[in-house]
Order: sequence, then structure tokens, then C-alpha cells
Amino acid sequence: MSFNTFGKIFRFTTWGESHGPAIGCIVDGCPPNITLSENDIQKDMDRRRPGKSKFVSQRKESDKVEILSGIFNGKTTGTPISMLIRNEDKRSRDYESIKSKFRPGHADYTYFKKYGIRDYRGGGRQSARETASRVAAGAIAKMVLKNIIGKKFNIIGGVIQLGLMGCDRNNWNNNEIRKNPFFCPDKKSVKLWEKYLLAVRKSGSSCGAIIELRANGIPSGLGAPIYSKLDSDLAGALMSINAVKGVNIGSGISSAYLSGEENSDEMRSKSGKIKFKSNNAGGILGGISSGQQIIASFAVKPTSSIINSRETVNKKGINTKISVRGRHDPCVGIRAVPIGEAMMSCVLLDHLLMNRAQCG
Amino acid sequence: MSFNTFGKIFRFTTWGESHGPAIGCIVDGCPPNITLSENDIQKDMDRRRPGKSKFVSQRKESDKVEILSGIFNGKTTGTPISMLIRNEDKRSRDYESIKSKFRPGHADYTYFKKYGIRDYRGGGRQSARETASRVAAGAIAKMVLKNIIGKKFNIIGGVIQLGLMGCDRNNWNNNEIRKNPFFCPDKKSVKLWEKYLLAVRKSGSSCGAIIELRANGIPSGLGAPIYSKLDSDLAGALMSINAVKGVNIGSGISSAYLSGEENSDEMRSKSGKIKFKSNNAGGILGGISSGQQIIASFAVKPTSSIINSRETVNKKGINTKISVRGRHDPCVGIRAVPIGEAMMSCVLLDHLLMNRAQCG
Amino acid sequence: MSFNTFGKIFRFTTWGESHGPAIGCIVDGCPPNITLSENDIQKDMDRRRPGKSKFVSQRKESDKVEILSGIFNGKTTGTPISMLIRNEDKRSRDYESIKSKFRPGHADYTYFKKYGIRDYRGGGRQSARETASRVAAGAIAKMVLKNIIGKKFNIIGGVIQLGLMGCDRNNWNNNEIRKNPFFCPDKKSVKLWEKYLLAVRKSGSSCGAIIELRANGIPSGLGAPIYSKLDSDLAGALMSINAVKGVNIGSGISSAYLSGEENSDEMRSKSGKIKFKSNNAGGILGGISSGQQIIASFAVKPTSSIINSRETVNKKGINTKISVRGRHDPCVGIRAVPIGEAMMSCVLLDHLLMNRAQCG
Amino acid sequence: MSFNTFGKIFRFTTWGESHGPAIGCIVDGCPPNITLSENDIQKDMDRRRPGKSKFVSQRKESDKVEILSGIFNGKTTGTPISMLIRNEDKRSRDYESIKSKFRPGHADYTYFKKYGIRDYRGGGRQSARETASRVAAGAIAKMVLKNIIGKKFNIIGGVIQLGLMGCDRNNWNNNEIRKNPFFCPDKKSVKLWEKYLLAVRKSGSSCGAIIELRANGIPSGLGAPIYSKLDSDLAGALMSINAVKGVNIGSGISSAYLSGEENSDEMRSKSGKIKFKSNNAGGILGGISSGQQIIASFAVKPTSSIINSRETVNKKGINTKISVRGRHDPCVGIRAVPIGEAMMSCVLLDHLLMNRAQCG
Repeated sequence: MSFNTFGKIFRFTTWGESHGPAIGCIVDGCPPNITLSENDIQKDMDRRRPGKSKFVSQRKESDKVEILSGIFNGKTTGTPISMLIRNEDKRSRDYESIKSKFRPGHADYTYFKKYGIRDYRGGGRQSARETASRVAAGAIAKMVLKNIIGKKFNIIGGVIQLGLMGCDRNNWNNNEIRKNPFFCPDKKSVKLWEKYLLAVRKSGSSCGAIIELRANGIPSGLGAPIYSKLDSDLAGALMSINAVKGVNIGSGISSAYLSGEENSDEMRSKSGKIKFKSNNAGGILGGISSGQQIIASFAVKPTSSIINSRETVNKKGINTKISVRGRHDPCVGIRAVPIGEAMMSCVLLDHLLMNRAQCG
Repeated sequence: MSFNTFGKIFRFTTWGESHGPAIGCIVDGCPPNITLSENDIQKDMDRRRPGKSKFVSQRKESDKVEILSGIFNGKTTGTPISMLIRNEDKRSRDYESIKSKFRPGHADYTYFKKYGIRDYRGGGRQSARETASRVAAGAIAKMVLKNIIGKKFNIIGGVIQLGLMGCDRNNWNNNEIRKNPFFCPDKKSVKLWEKYLLAVRKSGSSCGAIIELRANGIPSGLGAPIYSKLDSDLAGALMSINAVKGVNIGSGISSAYLSGEENSDEMRSKSGKIKFKSNNAGGILGGISSGQQIIASFAVKPTSSIINSRETVNKKGINTKISVRGRHDPCVGIRAVPIGEAMMSCVLLDHLLMNRAQCG
Repeated sequence: MSFNTFGKIFRFTTWGESHGPAIGCIVDGCPPNITLSENDIQKDMDRRRPGKSKFVSQRKESDKVEILSGIFNGKTTGTPISMLIRNEDKRSRDYESIKSKFRPGHADYTYFKKYGIRDYRGGGRQSARETASRVAAGAIAKMVLKNIIGKKFNIIGGVIQLGLMGCDRNNWNNNEIRKNPFFCPDKKSVKLWEKYLLAVRKSGSSCGAIIELRANGIPSGLGAPIYSKLDSDLAGALMSINAVKGVNIGSGISSAYLSGEENSDEMRSKSGKIKFKSNNAGGILGGISSGQQIIASFAVKPTSSIINSRETVNKKGINTKISVRGRHDPCVGIRAVPIGEAMMSCVLLDHLLMNRAQCG
Repeated sequence: MSFNTFGKIFRFTTWGESHGPAIGCIVDGCPPNITLSENDIQKDMDRRRPGKSKFVSQRKESDKVEILSGIFNGKTTGTPISMLIRNEDKRSRDYESIKSKFRPGHADYTYFKKYGIRDYRGGGRQSARETASRVAAGAIAKMVLKNIIGKKFNIIGGVIQLGLMGCDRNNWNNNEIRKNPFFCPDKKSVKLWEKYLLAVRKSGSSCGAIIELRANGIPSGLGAPIYSKLDSDLAGALMSINAVKGVNIGSGISSAYLSGEENSDEMRSKSGKIKFKSNNAGGILGGISSGQQIIASFAVKPTSSIINSRETVNKKGINTKISVRGRHDPCVGIRAVPIGEAMMSCVLLDHLLMNRAQCG
């Protein structure tokens, strides 16, 4: 059982609250002798951190990672890697007004019902601030995957739907994702999305998003049937990200609408190599990787902390209204991109190690 | 780590291949002193078993469960409950023609790549036959939930989309589900679905489905953040079912298209009881149950074993074609209903016990 | 969490009661493509089974193992191996007289306190009958270890203390162990032990034993600090055997009486190979194997089911006396030898696979 | 799987090396609403920390615990409690002379063989410094046990054997343990032990110890057969402590020498309460607590880092000699007392929560 630990062999444990002194992450089970520095991790941290554009939370955090253990002379030692990220820009007073009210659509209510205690300062442990720790763990997973698989391994995510605004997945461009503040893979959509999101924010509301993840270079054979299937573990991992309400593998929900012929990916052999003619499976069959690109997507609901007034109750069970001010993302889905990549990287590495254990 | 074991406290382990002598399931961690008989389990088994209508596989299995341990004088003892289900109607010769070919969209290929060995008889361990074991475990979970929660607990699933044919969820009727061979909750759709599925089968093809699950009576407070969230565990559980490619909690993927106001469920207090004005959350906020109805849905891809000829390769890597005859479901999604209920029941009970452990 | 499951990657789950229809074991995580038959397992089963000499229980069980899954064409497939062992010689009526009394030193009382239910027939799940399942799992572990490590791997256990009777460990002889009914490694002690144990039994009493286990061919590097140390896992495994009250690694408890110089095993290099001058460590340093012989021993308390009358209470809490007749071992420690070997084999294999996962 | 995590529901994960910037511990699964402060933890830390008498290591560490998460307004919130302990008195240069040599009886060699990397500074992760983290976790476990069980709960350990010097267990006195620097429960032995240990140290050698742990107030019914037995988990926990080579439950190894009558603890009922006439079982029968005092003991081998010269090899496999100077405990067993208490407290709490889960 593991409440705040993720993974089976490559495992990470996160701790910390939004407005405590720091948050952090322990990575355990990391293979030894992998070159690793704080800089390797910082790159991914910077992609997630708030305050970088006007489209995300204005909280100012440098999200600098300090490694406290597990590295000796620039290499992993096989012992736990402890990482610390300080909380620099806390404004707990912002939360005074909602101290005893529950935000509709927020975990305020359920945490209180479960634990009988409420840490109202920035959402406490419920806060998406926790995801910074995941990105740190994911950065290590990526380094290890690169070390084991080689250069052909890479993973990238993009926002393919921003609220009501879609984009053309056929225009997917990894470089474009790195350029715009929405992680949008389709250059043509960026301007439109910009206008749309500013309007959403201005109206005091918020919107959702769909993120797609793609991993290349993953060998076939990863995934442990029946209850540690690769897709099952990916679904659990992505659904554990704050505000996620749906997960697809490959064609996902859409596959329900396809015929057997349309859906099943035909195979061809060419000069000794087996190729699939399509990838509705998202690279996973029977819970085991097929050697194709691994594709998964997940839907993030709109931010529940919004300015527009909503009906709710307070801790005493009295009806009231709530309007949440403060520094919230108008679309939490945007910053979910590096988090999704991190979770997928951890799952893939975990399965690679698991497969090594059982199948040599 | 647990390849063929599901759950944390209430755990089950399944074993067995499609064409071996038997399959089975061990349930561990079951609370003691719960009244339980083979009949209690058989009811659910019968809802899943093949050969019951012309819309499912014609394999004839009585799916009779024998309890070999864990019950004394009609009550659970707290020790493992071992259940055996014999395979009665095996026709391994049906598989001779595809012995060395890989079915597109099937786990044939990936199992072979992973384990270097192929049990071609009915799919071996990949077969959905394994899910009979899950239904047996789920039946026990339901009995325990009824014992702990009382009569207000119930769980039911229905097919809300059959290939291209939808139904009106506003007409959801539990009794209707029990009557028609599609587990369809909307009486008005049944006739249409019947025609549609017969046409699909006749054409040598197959179709997918979407199943919705609803659980009532679940108390608030279940779910263990961050990495054993109730929705995360449900997503992993449902994605582990054969052929599932997508999972939604509450509004799921659709929530990405809603605004913050539309999506977040407002709360009202009435005579001391807190009620939500809607249920886009599917009864789960921040990974913890809110006391509302728990709602999840999942998409099942179309059966990959179809008569229509498909391009593929064989074990030697040579291009060939395949046409799969035999006794396959034209829509595996239909029989996934009791399996989904079983998995959700196990997850809910597991979280109830987990919550009891940490929060008393 | 795993109540009735043992292991991390190579895992087994046991089920069944002493007087139920059968007992059994599921082995999960077994590497694929290992040649395995029921005969390979039967050899070890026969070493443990009762009724073989006048020094053990006279219950007549053939302990024949039926493999129900996980093997195809004589090889493991990587999927769960289900093994069934029928209970043939049950005499539940033997237990009528103690049905409502608690045997001093027995788990009767604590099972009843924990579960609120009592399966008095032969001890139910508390019975050492469960250990037959462990021996089956251990036999598979040995086959896999032989397959991976090669011929230099072997494991053997011997009884080095039978009640008050010791033996000379310097006379340890593997062949002798296989010949006498006590698994005694020292030929000179056998006659004496025979007389001693007959006297113990005749007097209506019982005695304890100490068993030593030795494994050869184990490579260095197995063991995962800090909380999956090889010695820690061995200690937990051996202490889980019925009636075990103490565990030593290498010199064990005695090491407390040694000086730093006496205890620490000096090292010498000879033609490129490192040798230790002694083995007080039992082949484990810092929880990791050193490449030396792995040595562990464990103490089994005397059988608590004895004929001699003892003071106790009954289920109603009334003072009474108890005298246990039936077919009990005068020294349960003897048959613990193959069980100890089985548990050590499973731990060693598990750590070999774990090490493969993290360290390649 | 959990390399650096201990426990099932109440779990802790430790990280950090002897000469890194800090070490630490994350406690997960702690029940909410338990009053807890850094002071509550510090008391136990002070009992373990070095530099307190001339009989232990002279390393000067304040071992001050900083709580970074999981507490709000002085109470546990049910979320992970992160604790940080800085390393203040590192002298890595002390280790320059042994940088490339392996200390006989030390984990230097096996860590190098496993991970292919050597952190020679103070033993890195192998160092007993890690145990400070365990004491912090154990202090929290004790607070929770007191909160749930009430005042009748307490736990205390004492050194009952110091090298060749025993003591009289019949003189066991909890207050005496708190007074002398050896945690010796028998006042009469203290003076003798003092002389003995000074002589051992002066001779450049070291000695071992046996520690006994006693817990009162533990209810019956804790322990989950078969593979999470209370004694099995205790054995694993105690064997995981640095330098431990043997573990006893109750009479332990000695029980092998007793007859069935001597060993099994008879029961008597008096005014409705059941009492045992002795406690050879150490309060555990069939792996489940009986309601008696829980008693376990463990043997710690003599410190392997000694001044007296020893034969060994270096990293290049060349024969050499080693003499270890620095600040080492002449008997590491002494400071193992609070560590043993911590591990036992964690196991007991874990089983209490587990029992609550399954048995209500």
C-alpha cells in the first residue's frame, strides 16, 4: 500500500503542502552509475513552474531543486535520491476569506470529510503544487531511460484541446510545442488560443484541456499482465494528476465507435522488421508494449477556483456563496503537460525494470 | 509488485488459461464473519458467462464456482477464499489455423515478444476468460460492502453506447438493464441495438461499446491521496479489463469542454444534509469520495478476432493474411458490464478498508 | 500489503485449511521458458510429507501436486502457476474433544480473538499443513535458480539440534542428511537421536529443534538495502514458518559474544579471486550477499499439541484441562527442513530478480 | 517492492548518507488529528544520538529534527510527515586512508559489488547514521499508539548482554535503563560493564550485545497470517538494523531446548479475565498477539571498524592490511536500543492499523 508513493521498482514518494516551508520527493530504486545533476532536473522544472506567462498562475516560484542524497561524484549510487524544493511565494492571507467555505468542484470538502482537519492555506496537500515533485522524479526517469534505451528514446506532450478550441493533430510539431505558452503542437492554433484564453480569464471563468503524450523508442514486451498492464498503470498514473477526469490509450474512447477492421492495426513485415499500418492501439496490446509509439491522452477539467460567484456551504453546513480571488491558472491543463510526461516516463521506466526482472 | 494480484487490503489473485483445465481466483483480506455461499457468487457469474444469447460468444460454460477454502459453517473466516471454475467447452483445434499467425489488434504478438512463448489455444492467459475470476471476486466484494454499508449500497452498470448506436442516459432504468441481453438501460434503444448488432456480426465484423457504472451508498472520505486516489485506482482497474482503451470519471473527457461554472458541482445544505446540485465529478473530488453517486465509464474497443480478412505477419516474420473463425463475441463490450461492476466493487471495498485503517 | 502472499517479484500465494477439500499455491512472477513438470516439484513434496517414518505425524497424505496453469508444452509461460494438493486423510472427529478448548502454546486462542470464529478441524488455516504449499513454491524457485545460476547452485538444510541433543556441525554431510529420518547431517548422532525422540514421544511430550540452511553458488550483490536486506527478508521468511521462535544469520546470536577481530571475516585475494578466511557473516554483509555460502538457522519450539495434560480455558472462559490426542509430530522441527529450504530458495530467487531489475 | 520504505499502512521512507548534507524520513499513512511536535520526537532522538558518553561514538550531532510537512496547527493532517536531520559533524578526511580498502565484516565490499560505486565517506548509506531516521519515525508511531491504546501502552528496550558480560533479567528495572549509559536494566551490572567496555575499547577491539524489547498494552488479535505474521514482521524489522545477526521472539532460540510442557504457556481464567502462567511465546501465537507483553530480542555483532590490524583486500583486489581509526562505537549494540524500540513500535502500529482494516 502506498498513499504518497508511486511506482513498483523505480518508486518516488512526495511530501509537502502548498504553503509549508518546502515540498520534496524521494526517488528510490534508481539504477546506479547514471550521470545526474540538478541541472538535468531543472530543465523540466522550468517547463512546469508558474509565473512564466500571463496564461498561468502568477505565483513566483523559482522551483529550484536541491539534491540532498543519492548522488556521489555526479553519479547515482543506487540509494534514495532526496530532492527539496522550497516554497518561496506563499500568500496564505489570500485564503483567509475562504477559510471556512468549500470551493465547489474542489477537494476542500472531501479532505475535510476524510481527515477531519482543514489546511486551507493554498489547498495544503491538495494543491497542484505537489506536481512539481513529480516533474523532478520524471526528469530522473527520463535520464535513466535515455541511458538504457539510447537516443531513440524521447517523450513529449502537447495540449490538443483548450476548452472549446481544438487543433489539428496532423500538424503536430515538437518544436512548436517548445515555443508557445500553451504547449500547443499546431502553430496555426496558437493565436486563436491566446485570444480565447484571455477572454476566459477576463470573464472570471476557467476552461479545461486535453493533453496528448507520445513516447518513442519504447521496446516491445513492457507491461505485466494482468493487473500491472502498461495501459492500466498509465491510466492510474495520469488519473492521479490533479483535475484529470478522463484517460485514453491510443484511440481511446473513440475506439468504441470504430469497426473491428478500422480499429485493429494491421501488420506488415519489411526487410525483417515488423511495422504496423496504423496505431489505434497507442502502442499497447493486451497491456504489453508492441514497439510502436506509445500514445495516451488525458482530460483536465476547468480550474475550480474561479472569481465568478458560486453557491456553496461552509464548515458549519450553512449555505453561502463563494468567489475565489488569488493567483490561479485559468486553465490548469496547460501546466499539466510536463506533469503528464513525468508520470508516463516513470511508468515506462518502471515497466522496463520490471520486465528486466522477470524476463531477463 | 503484483502481476496477477489486484487490490491493497482486499486483494484477489487470478490464474488460469482459456484452454487449461480450470481458472481460478484467491480472495485475500476478506473481513471475517460475512455470510457467503457459492450461490451468492453464482448470480454474478451467470450475468457474465458466454452462450446466453445470440449476441455473445457461443462457448458453453456453466461457470460454476467451487469454493475450496476460507468459509466455515457458511461464514468467511478471514483466511483466503479459493475459488475454482472449470473450463468445460474448450476447442483448441479451432486455433490450429492461427497457431503461428498474429491477430491484428490482439495480444498474440506482444505476449510472444515478451515471454518468447506462445499459448495459442484460445489466447491462453490473454483470453477474456480470465475475467470470470474477477466477477467471482467482485461478487464477494459486493457481499462485504452490503454487510458494512447496509441496504443503501448498490452498484449497477449499463451499456450506453453500442458501436455507433447511442442511447438516452436520461432513460436509465436499472430494471431494464436486467431484462435485455445488452445491459442497455434505455428500453427504447434495445430493438435498434438488436438489429444493429446482428448486422455487424453478419458482416463478419465487430463493434465497440461504452459502459457506465453507478454505485450508490458510498460514504464520503474514501480515497487515499496522492497515489491511491479513488479515481486513479478506478481508472487503473477499469483499464485492466481486456480491450478497454478509455476511462472517464463523471463527465470525464467531456469536462474538458465545460467552463468552470458549468463543471463544478455547487453545494447546498438542506435540513442539515449537504447536497450537490449536479454530479460532473462522478462523486470524487481530489481523489476522495464526496458522498455522491460514484460514476465511471469505460470504452471497449471492437473485438479483434473477426472473420473479415486482415493483413498480418506470422511467427517467422512473413507477411500473410488472417481470418478468425470460432466463437467470438461480436461486441466484447457487452459482457464487460458485470466485469466493470466487479472491478469497481473491489476498488470501493478496498478503499473502505483502507480508510478504516488510517482514519478509524 | 499481502496477508497470504510471499515475495516481491517471484511471489507465491497460498490458500487452504487442514481439513478442507484441498490446499494450494499460486506462483506468480516466474520467469518464462523454464522447463518444469509436476515431478520436479514432487521430489521436494515427498521430503516434507507426513507418515513417512515413526518420528513424524502418521497422517497419510500423498501430497500429489497438480499443476493447473502456467505451463505450456513443459515450460513455464510467465503466467501464474496454480498448484493444487488435495487433503486426503482428514479425521475432523479427532478434534471434537478440543473443539471449544484452547491448546496452550497454540494459535487456537489468537485466531479466535482476531477473527471471532474458530475452525477447530485440524487447526484450520493455522495448521502446518499450509507449509506443503510453500514447499511446492520453493521447488519451482530452485528450478529457476538452477536455470539462471547453473550447477554450482544448491541448497540444503539439516537439523543440528533435536531438543536437548546436539550434533557436531564439523561432521556435516549432505548425503547423510538424505539418509536418516531426522535430516541430521552428522551420522554419529542419528542412533542417539532415535532413542531420544522415541522416549520423548512415549512420555507424551514433545521437543524442539534447530535447523541450519546452507546455499551455495549465490552471487554477490543480492539484497536491497535498507528495508529489503537479504538477511532481513530471510529472517522474516523463516520466522513465518509455524512454531519458529528464533532466527540466526551466520554466527547469529553467538556473534554477540565475539570480539571484533574474531567476528569479522578477513579477506584474501588469490589468483584474482577474493576469498574470506571465515564465514561468521553467513555470506551477508550490510544486507547484501558477499559471494560466500549463505548460512541461516532457525529454532522451532516443541509441538504444542501433546498428550500430557495441561491447564487451559475454553471458549466460554472457564478453566479446564486439555490433553491432545491425534496424529501430531513429536518434533515439528524435523519436517521444517524442506520448508526452510523452500523459503530460503524463494527469498534468494526474489532477490536475484530484484537485483536484475535495479542493477541490470 | 520497497527498498528504502518500511511498513504497510504506517510507512516510512528514509534517505541520506552519513556525510551528505542531511538525512531524513517521510512518514506516510499516519492517522490524522494526532497532537505532534518536534519536541515529542526529539526525546527519542536524544537517546540514540552519538557523543553523549565515552562509551559511544564521539561524533557530535545535535540530531535536531525539523518537520517540513504533515502537521497543521500542532496536529497531524493525515498527509506525509517529512523530517529533516542535518549532518553537522562530518570528517570525510578520516576516511581517506581506507578509501580503497574494504573493512572486514563491513558492507564496504558488498555495496561496491552490488552498485559498482563506492561512497567511502563515513560508509555513505551503509552507515548506522541512517537509523536516526528510524528513531524519528518510531517516535511518531509511539505517539499514535498512545493515542489509540491509551496509557497502558508503553515500550522499552534494554541491553541484557554486553559482549561476554550478562546481567540478571529478573532485576529488570525500567528506571535503571534510563539512568545508565548502557541501557542496562540491572543496576548491579553497570559498574562491571563500565570496566569491561573501557578495556575493550582500550585494546583496540570491539564487542557485541543482545538487546531485549518489551511492549505492554498491546491488544490481542494483531498479526496477519500467514506472511504478515506479527513475529515474522518483527524479525524482519529487527534484522534490518545495522549489524544485527539474530532475532528471538519470547524464549526464542532457547525454546528449542524446552519440552512441550515447559514451553507452552498455560492459561487460567480469573474473574472473567484470561491470564497466561508464563510467557515463552513472547506474546505471539501463530503470528498473532495474545494480549500478553510482547517480547523480542536481537543480537548485534561487534563493530567491524576497529583499530586492531586486519587482513583485507583493496578495490584492485590486492592483499593489504587495514586499521580503522576514527570515531566508532566500541559496541554498536548500545545505541541500537532506541532503534529497536522504534522498529518494534512501527511494526505494532502497522499491525494495529491493518487489523482495523480487515477486522474492524
